[in-house]
Amino acid sequence: MAWKNAVVSREEQKELKREALLREAAAAFNQHGYHATSLDDIANSLGVTKAALYYYYPNKQKLLAACLERLMETSFKGLSRAMAEGQNGREKIKLALEYYLLSLIDEMSCCVIVTEDDALLPEDHKEHIKVRDRYEQALRDLVREGIADGSIVPCDPKLVTLTFLGSVHWVPKWFSHDRQWSGKELAAMMSALLDRALSTAPVKSLLG
Amino acid sequence: MAWKNAVVSREEQKELKREALLREAAAAFNQHGYHATSLDDIANSLGVTKAALYYYYPNKQKLLAACLERLMETSFKGLSRAMAEGQNGREKIKLALEYYLLSLIDEMSCCVIVTEDDALLPEDHKEHIKVRDRYEQALRDLVREGIADGSIVPCDPKLVTLTFLGSVHWVPKWFSHDRQWSGKELAAMMSALLDRALSTAPVKSLLG
Repeated sequence: MAWKNAVVSREEQKELKREALLREAAAAFNQHGYHATSLDDIANSLGVTKAALYYYYPNKQKLLAACLERLMETSFKGLSRAMAEGQNGREKIKLALEYYLLSLIDEMSCCVIVTEDDALLPEDHKEHIKVRDRYEQALRDLVREGIADGSIVPCDPKLVTLTFLGSVHWVPKWFSHDRQWSGKELAAMMSALLDRALSTAPVKSLLG
Repeated sequence: MAWKNAVVSREEQKELKREALLREAAAAFNQHGYHATSLDDIANSLGVTKAALYYYYPNKQKLLAACLERLMETSFKGLSRAMAEGQNGREKIKLALEYYLLSLIDEMSCCVIVTEDDALLPEDHKEHIKVRDRYEQALRDLVREGIADGSIVPCDPKLVTLTFLGSVHWVPKWFSHDRQWSGKELAAMMSALLDRALSTAPVKSLLG
């Protein structure tokens, strides 16, 4: 490719701008809340006009939908990785939670917005719920796998999944990077804590 | 008292109306989301005028603040009960979570609104955060007590508390009474699951 990739094509440019936009939108939603953030705010902090934003997304709801879609993509990637790396159901669900936490905490992944799905347009909401349900079902299957292979105690996979997702989805409400733990530390600690609730061989200490 | 308490005083009347109003507001916020609910909606479903509502609360934010205040009162009552009934730190935190869940699930206690504290007016937000922090600190103290008395494994009380509150606060997002479990069942199952993450003598099964 010309210029040894130092220049990018028009299509790539557009994708890079879309990335920057989603990142900025997520950061703004996280900081001020979805309802309190306007497209003007986002355009201002990107240093572009609102018209430039409209080129990518017709309104704030579509921007939210794009953020959530991105988050679900990352979540499914983490799930695949967990399923490949874990040796049994328990390890797989623990890793899946850890990777999901990491993607939620990563600024790109639009954390606060997981609680804002009610604000989506009806058609996007329906689509999001479908994908989210598929993700939840996959987690329940890992719990079932763990019960079957003896790594997880008998339990209700639905209750477990919803309880754990609650812990994870609450993180954006209280976690910020300048606090006590890094995102990586938090993801490791929280997944270890939740894991202990299920494990047939629970660790004697959750420290260190 | 005249009429054997069949009639109530003007002050009692006012309190009963305030109760009905808070209950209705909570139900509406839960069903449609805080931002999507107007004072008109609430007045309509109570069959009163908006002017009648203004007698109690000057605006929607003040109504939200009153709902949250009520919730925190109930939470502290549950905490006292848990502290009186539990035999060690682990039992106390388990019961505190169970009672907190019950109060969240009870329609009076304004469940969805726990995630809407950002919408409070600055002075109410500050006050709410103060009370909420006091509640969190009390839960952390129970975890510390459990570590000290040997009923809870070594762990980070702050991480534990925030993780567990996440599970609990997520419930209003997915739980409704027409589902698989009653509120009482859910509160018992979820507190048992979270309890197992901490217990030095974890149960062999979470079923039955």
